[in-house]
Amino acid sequence: MIEIIKPMDIEKKSFEIITELLGERKLDPENELVIKRVIHTTADFEYAESLVFSEHAVSKGIEALKAGCNIVTDTQMAKSGINKAALKKLGCEVHCFMSDEDVAEEAKVRGVTRATISMERAAELSKEGSPLIFAIGNAPTALIRIKELFDQGEINPALVIGVPVGFVNVVESKELIIESGMPHIVARGRKGGSNVAAAICNAMMYQITR
Amino acid sequence: MIEIIKPMDIEKKSFEIITELLGERKLDPENELVIKRVIHTTADFEYAESLVFSEHAVSKGIEALKAGCNIVTDTQMAKSGINKAALKKLGCEVHCFMSDEDVAEEAKVRGVTRATISMERAAELSKEGSPLIFAIGNAPTALIRIKELFDQGEINPALVIGVPVGFVNVVESKELIIESGMPHIVARGRKGGSNVAAAICNAMMYQITR
Repeated sequence: MIEIIKPMDIEKKSFEIITELLGERKLDPENELVIKRVIHTTADFEYAESLVFSEHAVSKGIEALKAGCNIVTDTQMAKSGINKAALKKLGCEVHCFMSDEDVAEEAKVRGVTRATISMERAAELSKEGSPLIFAIGNAPTALIRIKELFDQGEINPALVIGVPVGFVNVVESKELIIESGMPHIVARGRKGGSNVAAAICNAMMYQITR
Repeated sequence: MIEIIKPMDIEKKSFEIITELLGERKLDPENELVIKRVIHTTADFEYAESLVFSEHAVSKGIEALKAGCNIVTDTQMAKSGINKAALKKLGCEVHCFMSDEDVAEEAKVRGVTRATISMERAAELSKEGSPLIFAIGNAPTALIRIKELFDQGEINPALVIGVPVGFVNVVESKELIIESGMPHIVARGRKGGSNVAAAICNAMMYQITR
């Protein structure tokens, strides 16, 4: 039976159901709202186990958001899913270079993915001084390039959200980020996606804008 | 270990791995590419069981796409995820009314969700004559309104993709669509999402554009 429920109350009730279904499972209080929002976005409780947080990753992400950071995604879909009102309130901006014509051209010439080039564009952006958060829900090659750029001293991101989904190089690229020394939130294994990347950004923003 | 693989070959290899992991599981040939693309998008094999197709739903969707249909989504994210090059090739258009100011206003006045009003906008669009596909990955209230509009004779969609995700009214609203008599592809249960809605549209388009 369909229950009549006010739009505003749907999210609240959803989180109550998620909490109930998590049962005895104890979540780290710092990470709890991120984990629950990812479950809210996917209805997949595996994320309670698979999300890996480096020490105080959420606090570091929130600090960057408070400082008006740039968020760089690897899909237009992740960019769309990040809450625009919250971004505006915080003075943050979200960028996705994947559909830029010059990115496609350079990728073709160099025989690499557009995601690789897009991360280089992010590195240029990071030179402007604002903190940088990566929200990567699709391309393993994005994570690989982020790791290289970090090792070369080109970037020093406040947080890497590494949640590509898929079957080729996905698991391995996420392990690279976990071992990189960069602050990270990673969905270990094959699962993830642009929706998950956006949900993690929103979970952090909602803690300081609502 | 990270394997060097050409961008073009990643998708092919992913589908091979999915086929291998599905093992003995036999899929209806008409639905196979839709199911596999949803798994490709989510890395979640539960969709091999949970996706429900009405008779020749995929053929009906493809026919509408060939006829230059309108696709209406309930999130900007689903709209973003639908392949623009394929849409253009087919002369199709994708619409999302959720962020329109007048939709928000009317929803507030009437005390309903923006998704409800957005589906009414879609009904107006359908009077222009092109076939209509709904790609709903988020809002149960969108599915409820689609069912009402169909029962009132206001719309006669070529296909309803009903794949909202979540915990409140989601399961029930999807069952409404399954029992509605409208051609449908539904992800039974709590799982789904804007990414799944987009993937189903893309899976159908790629069969006639690649």
